[in-house]
Formats: sequence, C-alpha cells, structure tokens
Amino acid sequence: MLAEIITIGDELLIGQVIDTNSAFIAKQLNKIGVSIYQITSVQDDKDHILQALSDAEGRVDIVILTGGLGPTKDDVTKKTIAEYFGDILVRDQSVLDNIESIWKQHVRTQLLQVNRDQALIPSKAKPLMNRLGTAPGMWMDKGDKVFISLPGVPYEMMALVEFEVLPKLKDKYHRPYILHRTLMVYGLGESALAERIEPWEDALPKHIKLAYLPNLGQMRLRLSTKGFDEVQLKNEVQEQIDKVIPYIKDEFAGFEDEEGSVEIVIAKQLTKLGKTLAIAESCTGGAVAERFTINPGASAFFKGGVVTYATQSKINVLHVSKTLIDAHSVVSAPVVESMAENALQLFQSDYAIATTGNAGPTKGDSKAEIGTVFIAIATKNGVYSKEFNFGNLRLKVINKAVNKALEMLLKEIFKN
Amino acid sequence: MLAEIITIGDELLIGQVIDTNSAFIAKQLNKIGVSIYQITSVQDDKDHILQALSDAEGRVDIVILTGGLGPTKDDVTKKTIAEYFGDILVRDQSVLDNIESIWKQHVRTQLLQVNRDQALIPSKAKPLMNRLGTAPGMWMDKGDKVFISLPGVPYEMMALVEFEVLPKLKDKYHRPYILHRTLMVYGLGESALAERIEPWEDALPKHIKLAYLPNLGQMRLRLSTKGFDEVQLKNEVQEQIDKVIPYIKDEFAGFEDEEGSVEIVIAKQLTKLGKTLAIAESCTGGAVAERFTINPGASAFFKGGVVTYATQSKINVLHVSKTLIDAHSVVSAPVVESMAENALQLFQSDYAIATTGNAGPTKGDSKAEIGTVFIAIATKNGVYSKEFNFGNLRLKVINKAVNKALEMLLKEIFKN
Repeated sequence: MLAEIITIGDELLIGQVIDTNSAFIAKQLNKIGVSIYQITSVQDDKDHILQALSDAEGRVDIVILTGGLGPTKDDVTKKTIAEYFGDILVRDQSVLDNIESIWKQHVRTQLLQVNRDQALIPSKAKPLMNRLGTAPGMWMDKGDKVFISLPGVPYEMMALVEFEVLPKLKDKYHRPYILHRTLMVYGLGESALAERIEPWEDALPKHIKLAYLPNLGQMRLRLSTKGFDEVQLKNEVQEQIDKVIPYIKDEFAGFEDEEGSVEIVIAKQLTKLGKTLAIAESCTGGAVAERFTINPGASAFFKGGVVTYATQSKINVLHVSKTLIDAHSVVSAPVVESMAENALQLFQSDYAIATTGNAGPTKGDSKAEIGTVFIAIATKNGVYSKEFNFGNLRLKVINKAVNKALEMLLKEIFKN
Repeated sequence: MLAEIITIGDELLIGQVIDTNSAFIAKQLNKIGVSIYQITSVQDDKDHILQALSDAEGRVDIVILTGGLGPTKDDVTKKTIAEYFGDILVRDQSVLDNIESIWKQHVRTQLLQVNRDQALIPSKAKPLMNRLGTAPGMWMDKGDKVFISLPGVPYEMMALVEFEVLPKLKDKYHRPYILHRTLMVYGLGESALAERIEPWEDALPKHIKLAYLPNLGQMRLRLSTKGFDEVQLKNEVQEQIDKVIPYIKDEFAGFEDEEGSVEIVIAKQLTKLGKTLAIAESCTGGAVAERFTINPGASAFFKGGVVTYATQSKINVLHVSKTLIDAHSVVSAPVVESMAENALQLFQSDYAIATTGNAGPTKGDSKAEIGTVFIAIATKNGVYSKEFNFGNLRLKVINKAVNKALEMLLKEIFKN
C-alpha cells in the first residue's frame, strides 16, 4: 500500500516555511500500514499541480495533497482538482453549515462571500469535515485509488488526518503491518558503529532494513520491516535487537519512543519514579526546557528552569557567588556545578541540569573558546560536570549541548 | 534559472526526520536569483533515485541532491550518481587528505576503510570540499545543466552551500534578481484582510505575485517578483507597499526581516535602542526565550528568563506572593503581571514578558479552562496584561501564546 504526499505552496519553494506536515502525515500513515513512496512539493500553479497529480497517480495508490485551500486568490488547489477530475465545483450544504458555525463562534462579524465560497467542492468529492477552520478536506475515489486534499494549516490538517483520513483508509484497504524500532547509541561515530556491528549487519535477514541516523553526538540505529503477521515481525525484530545489543552494550542508551525522542524516554521514567527536574541554562537559552515542556504531561515532573544568559542574572537569580565567577570565569566547571546545585535547591527538585558555555559567533563575558560548553548534573547525592568543545557553528553548539545534556541526564536517571 | 531539490532518505518518508535542508537551500538560492521549481523526497533506493534524477533533468537547469552520502551500507547516492552518468568511482586525493585531516583532529583512532572509501567519487565529478565532515560534496556538469550532490547533515550541507555551491553557480549562470518582501499584519483574518485590500490586489501588476500566509493569529502578506533590473523591481514593489499600507494602517506591524521572523525584528530594535529584555514563562515553557536565544547576538539584549512551571517555583524563584496566587489562582491577570514585574526587577531589564496559562491536555494547578492564557508586558513605566483563549490543542495553545507574546512586545517596543 503506497502513498505520495504532494505539498502545495510557493512558501515552501522559496524557503519561507519548513514543511512539517509531511513528516506528521508519513508517521501517521506508517502506523496503519501505508508506506510513503515519495513527497513532492510544488508551486501554487495549476499546470504544476496537474502534472504532479498525474505523476503521482502513476506511482501510488493513495495521493494526499496539503495546502492551497485558503479563501484568497493565490490558492488554486480546489479548482485544479476539479479540472483534473473533469468535474465542476458545487456548494456542499454540510460544509457551509460548518463554516457558518465556526464563523458564528469565532469571528462574529457577517460571513464574507469568499468564505461562503469555501463550501464549493468538486461534485464527486466527499467532504472531510474541518472543525477547526473554514477550508474543507476532500476525499475523491478513482477506481482503486484515492485522492485526499487537506488544508495546509498544521492543526487543521492534523485533526483531519486523525479523525477522518485514517479511519477511512483503514476501511478501504487491507494493509500490512509496518514496524520501526530505533536504538539510541551514544559515544560511537557512524563508521565505528558500523564496523563494530558488521558481523551482525551482514547476517540480518533481507526483509529487515537497517538505517544509521547520526545526530550531533547521538547515533540512532533503526530496524524497519513490514508484512502481514504482526506477531512474527515483532518477534523477528526483537530477536535481532537481542543479538545486536551485546556488540554495543556500553554505548546503548535505550529505545527511542514511538513518538520519537530521548526527552520522552526521560519524561516517562521521571514520571514513573515520581522524581522531578529543574534546568538552569545559559548558552542553550531555554532549548533544554522547551524539549520537555512541548510534550503533554510535563507538569508531572518539570519544576521549572532559569535562563541566566547575562552573568549578572546568574548572580541575582541563581545566587551563584560573584567571587566564584571572578575566580573561575563564567564558563567553568565550578560555575556550572553551582548553577545546577542552586537550581536543585531553588526549584526543590530531585535532578537538575545546568549548561554554561560560549555558542559564538563572538566571545561574551568569558575568555572561553567559542564552542566550549560545561554541563552539570546535580542530585541530592552530589553534583558533577563535564567540559566539551562543540566547534564554532552557533546552532551546532547549542544543539550538541542540548543533546549532550539530555544524554547525561538519561544516563544518570537509568544509572540504578 | 530553475532548480530542483531532491532530498534522499527513508527517514524523511517515514516521518522520523523533518526536512529542514530544503528550506535553507531554497532561501539561499533565491538570494542569487535561482528559483526552486520543485522539491522531491525519495527513498534510499537506487531505482527511485535514478528516476528522480531523470525527471528533474527534464524540468530544470540545476539539480541539487542532499543525503545518502554516509559511510554505511544504507547510503547509496554516490553509486547511483555514477550509474546515472555512466561513470565509475575513483579515489580523489584532495578528498582523502581532507578526510585524514578531519580524522586526525577529531577522532584520533586509526582511519577506517569505510571512511577511506568516502574519497571515492565519480571520475567526472569535481569534489566540493566538506571541511566539517568526511562525506564530500560533488559537482557534475552535463551540457548547460549541473548536478550537485551534498551531504544530508545540516551543518555540513549549509557550509558547502555557502562556500562552494553559491559562488560556483554565480560564476556559471547569468541570473535574474528575485525579490520577496513580507508585511506582518496582526488582528485581521485571512479573508477579512483579502476583502480590505481587494481594490489594491486587483490593480497589482501581473509580474508582482501576492501570497497570504496565515500563522496562528498573525498574517503575512508576501510580494514576490523577479527580473534583471534590480533597482526598478525594488522601486515597483516599494510603490505597491506604499499603496497597500493605508488599507491596513492599524494592523500593519512592520516587515519580516529577510532572514525571517518577528523576533529578529524585535532583537534588532532592542539592540539599536540599547534596551534589554527578560522573560518569565509558565505555559510556554521556555519557547519564548528560545525564539530569541537561537539567533546570534542575543546576549546584546537578552538578560535571561525563568520557566516557573510549578506553582511553588513562581513563589520561590520569581517571588510571586502566595497570597496573590491563593486569591486569584495561578492563571490570572494579577499573577502574570506580578511575574512580569518581578522578572523586570530580578533581571534588571527594560522590558519583561510573562506568560501563564493552561495548555492542556489536562487542568493543572488552576481551575482555568484549557487554552486560557494571560500575557503581561512590564516596563519601567508600568505593567499590563491581556487574557486569551487559544483553544484546546496543546501545541496550538503554546505556539499561539508565543506568537501573541511577541506581537505584544513588538507593539510595545515600536509604540513611540
């Protein structure tokens, strides 16, 4: 069962907007056994969309379009779909009712003609009701194939995928089971890891695919397979995992959660243990905290954090002693350890992470080389820190520091 | 001058990784007059890549590939390119020297054969030297067209684009000038904005393209054009901007910076004025701070922030009075205003933003409805706050709150 995602919008092709919709759709479709063959981003242009539709129809069973359904003149997807199917646009009363109800609830002024016209859909299309916005989703069967058009606004698209698209696809097609499992590995480069596990990789059954995913100091190793016997596939993959772990037992740091990330693994473990976390950030500027707070349930374990970017803030807010800073500089082991200890006290948490460093591009309040970062972990049993140099690209320094802080915390939490 | 970006990697097609490379490349190419016709994401599969190369060659002048250049067996791009050009792989001494030097500097163990083999490139390819990693970029001319292959690791790809690809493309092609200007508009929905500016839009010259970009409470209006007379294009677009602003004078909030975002506009203005900022976040969990600290130069104006997720942290860290919280609840105007005022004092800043609210999915320490958010701005002249309801989707609530906080700050800073 193959699908293609076509994302429509000039903003994607000039780099003004990053396409996050495709990854979401791909992940959701994988869960019900639909593989994405290709993702194609095209312009808000009739001829270009027509060509993409025709190419995709030749390649896959399911074509999913996002974008270009707004009420303004630059949005041409709906007219183009009607033309592709040799169809005309007709008013759908259920869509109009939904638009009127949204308008009444959120806008409260008189409904505009352009929004009323959003209820026009191709006569052969079934509407997919968008409760969060005025642009309807559309479902069009063509023989055994199906074309699905969704709005590009992420939250509207997401709700339609979950509540309309997935149930309907499950009804229409007999689908295999797709299995991905991802091992997190720290402390080994891509090629060193490959060399280490080569005997295992060479003996891997052909229907289990292996991928290496390097990510700033972290390696991920993904095993993927699909088929119709879910239990057998799970057993086969588990057997391979049991075989590979002995090769990497010191570097293996657990499985990436289905929804995907080390912070979710940490969050689950902290919640399970009933333990709490505080974060004191300098060079990472709030990025460590955000990795946790973006996920639901963070309030169960996350007490809070401080971003003490300026040296004076480290003194005023985090009560790091000025004498200590003067003696060792603001980018140093004693200072980062004091930050972690004080965050632990201030937030009354069980664990605290602290970061201080110089992400560049210019040197700040310390003489530390650009890329130098200290990271500390404090618990009720004490505090320790490590020094790193993450190179001289600002974003890389920040992201590597975040990854390393999460790695250190993960190891601390799973130590026992 | 048209280009196509082909991103290669199963991780994109299963939704494990979001493709951020394409937006970067598109933005950089636009700056030198190269338009992106299409972005195509394909699997780590020889036949699929061959097909994509052949399709792209039929559509555009410049084909840029990213990904699939690693040292492990799942990476097949290089062999596939050689096959597409009927070429063989040969060892390039300059690439091998670079690999050895990187290895010596960063890894320090013996160079592995798989990394030595990364110096194999198609005999007709010119190497693009990757100073940050062992996978070389490659440049292959074919008549008037060019194929460029880059590693998928973002920092390596970015450096190669900046230092190798752009200069070489500028040398090879006579390119037009591409102009995008984006107006930020607050407080008008997409269709209300379209209705308001309709007379102006209908009179817009055909070679200036208008796009509407809605984004959680903010609207962006983009004017795009290209041609060979840079001065004339700039004048024409400026003339149109001068004409449209009177229609939206109360809602217009400035221009999006070239590099693209309201926080950069704020950062530039604060730096120019020599003013500073502190941030106290609850429901936004560090996301407002991160929007500022991710950009270079943040230390010029950003004093720091606190994420007081737990109620007790608001009391301990931010010194909000327990009596105030008990009287009004933790999600209330008096509490958010106290958070902003105390952050201003604690960080000794000129401006402070504070957020408190309930992002869901469950209710926390307050009885506030899910989606309720209070945002406050404090300055040395006083404090004010506003109440919002951003619906019941966690990510949407957080992102809308961040956008709204930035909007309020932008307006405060540009008030005079």
